[in-house]
Amino acid sequence: MSRFFSSKYSSLEAYTPGEQPKDMKYIKLNTNESPFPPSKKVLDAVAEQASLLQLYSDPECTPLVAKCAELYGVKKTQVLMTNGSDEILNFAFMAFCDSQNPIVFPDITYGFYPVFAELNGIPYEQIPLNDDFTINVQDYVGINKNIVIANPNAPTGIALSLDEIERIVSSNPNNVVIIDEAYVDFGAQSAVCLVDKYDNLIVTQTFSKSRSLAGARLGFGIASEALICDMNTIKYSTNPYNVNRMTMMAGYGALCDNDYYMNNCKTIAQNRSYTEGALIDLGFEVLPSRANFVFAKSSLISGEELYRKLKSRGILVRHFTKERIKDYNRITIGTIEQMKALVSATEEILKELKK
Amino acid sequence: MSRFFSSKYSSLEAYTPGEQPKDMKYIKLNTNESPFPPSKKVLDAVAEQASLLQLYSDPECTPLVAKCAELYGVKKTQVLMTNGSDEILNFAFMAFCDSQNPIVFPDITYGFYPVFAELNGIPYEQIPLNDDFTINVQDYVGINKNIVIANPNAPTGIALSLDEIERIVSSNPNNVVIIDEAYVDFGAQSAVCLVDKYDNLIVTQTFSKSRSLAGARLGFGIASEALICDMNTIKYSTNPYNVNRMTMMAGYGALCDNDYYMNNCKTIAQNRSYTEGALIDLGFEVLPSRANFVFAKSSLISGEELYRKLKSRGILVRHFTKERIKDYNRITIGTIEQMKALVSATEEILKELKK
Repeated sequence: MSRFFSSKYSSLEAYTPGEQPKDMKYIKLNTNESPFPPSKKVLDAVAEQASLLQLYSDPECTPLVAKCAELYGVKKTQVLMTNGSDEILNFAFMAFCDSQNPIVFPDITYGFYPVFAELNGIPYEQIPLNDDFTINVQDYVGINKNIVIANPNAPTGIALSLDEIERIVSSNPNNVVIIDEAYVDFGAQSAVCLVDKYDNLIVTQTFSKSRSLAGARLGFGIASEALICDMNTIKYSTNPYNVNRMTMMAGYGALCDNDYYMNNCKTIAQNRSYTEGALIDLGFEVLPSRANFVFAKSSLISGEELYRKLKSRGILVRHFTKERIKDYNRITIGTIEQMKALVSATEEILKELKK
Repeated sequence: MSRFFSSKYSSLEAYTPGEQPKDMKYIKLNTNESPFPPSKKVLDAVAEQASLLQLYSDPECTPLVAKCAELYGVKKTQVLMTNGSDEILNFAFMAFCDSQNPIVFPDITYGFYPVFAELNGIPYEQIPLNDDFTINVQDYVGINKNIVIANPNAPTGIALSLDEIERIVSSNPNNVVIIDEAYVDFGAQSAVCLVDKYDNLIVTQTFSKSRSLAGARLGFGIASEALICDMNTIKYSTNPYNVNRMTMMAGYGALCDNDYYMNNCKTIAQNRSYTEGALIDLGFEVLPSRANFVFAKSSLISGEELYRKLKSRGILVRHFTKERIKDYNRITIGTIEQMKALVSATEEILKELKK
């Protein structure tokens, strides 16, 4: 730390992204990326934009916003595109939370929420999940505070139903409720259909998972026009050209090829079923996931040891050291070949333990 | 504005980017873009990355940071890459300024500085430029406040010498001095050579102007390791994957083709000389620019009228309504053909006035 660092941030604990070791080629099941490449329309769009890079991107992301609005059945003024969904989440924290307007979220969820809160000096409360890692909806009903919920939740993969989401949103009419749907396309119900009914609802999504664009950095929010307008004020006060022109048109191309990506999501769901079954057969406890990952533990091996032994076999999964979940690993669902390799390596590791 | 918008931001006046009208094809001399396309290494790098977009980008931008450090003769730990240089500027404002640590900058300069200050609740003071639009160095010597200076300044184009910059930096050892070198490659002296000598100096640059990558969004900061470390704390608390993989490798390709871009800068400087001369011949007053634009006014026509009449002839320049500079227009230096078109249209407009 330098002697100039603002005391506001001196105790900030930054987010730690999933590791990206470069020492060998790994089967990467640690950062919830898609195992499927981007579609041809994406590649074509990127190539076309590359030769125009000397020109600024369109700060309004006009074609992409229009396409997204059409696909989700909302007005163009209800959509805001950002540099990954981390950016729209930060914009929402900034715009609607402050020292007088705290935010609540589950104790086990996306690790960036407390970081955004700390960064922006926002008081926050972490509500414990039930023992089975489900969200107790009643904890959030009429709580009269801003709320952010990942649905499906991470790293558990467990989803709330649309009815449950609506109960939370409708019972807190004077607070903003952010539903972070990073993983929704893998089997949960989206709350986008509620944004016209509730002016306090923000739905955020990302192109990183279901749309194979983690490396392009594209996320978005859908909400009432007034909420989008406020978040645009933040955007135009931080980084008006937040989405570069290649990513903008890659996103456009991805929405044009929607069927390809939604079919990939179905494949991921099938591979998830296979993985859940195989891990259960190996004695694992696997939480019921609606996301492109499973959260699993075994009474035969610690979470940390399994993570290390898989890594030494060339397979990366994500291990968290937080007390309540340290027995688990979060395993991204990849291709069926990758999942068979994971299962087979895990089986070997367990066999060796018995020796 | 929604009823949920934080009072912190309710009076925020966002930055207004240069217009991008889509009604016809314009000669764009309004946003200081390069008229030259990206080099082949950039196109190849982008094409290669496109097929890998399903994978997250490297949050450390390892190859790009290494190449940049090599080119500028600093350590890798002294470089931070960002989503345009607006992002590194915002990080610097966040990290080193707060209610107890105000910032000062000229009254006429990049319009984003007051926005960053307002956004982050930072008190700021705007020091008037001299009547000839030069910076009075003495105003900043030993001022004992954080300072940001664009060098060359925008929209004037006027540069300080390295000695003048050093006087400012060395006389404020307990405050951070940010030198925003967005336009430095067009003829000013960089302060990068001072970062090892002064632990309070941050130099920011961008790939948007001299390196033909405005649409890719890439900027960076060079400073002491401790200052970079603090700004990294901010980055990892807002958006760890702030630079997407296409942009990262486009930037790498651009640094590999450094000669191409530096030759383009020389051409721009020649075209700037031509434009200055031609406008002076038409009776304009033109400030002595070291940037890829000139700031010019004529006693024969108001800044606003010239802007409008050029636009109706298909040429966009940038007009600012701020009282002190409303007689001027900022004209980006493009190809010689574009500048001849600008001069010829201006000549016609002035002739018509005399009728």
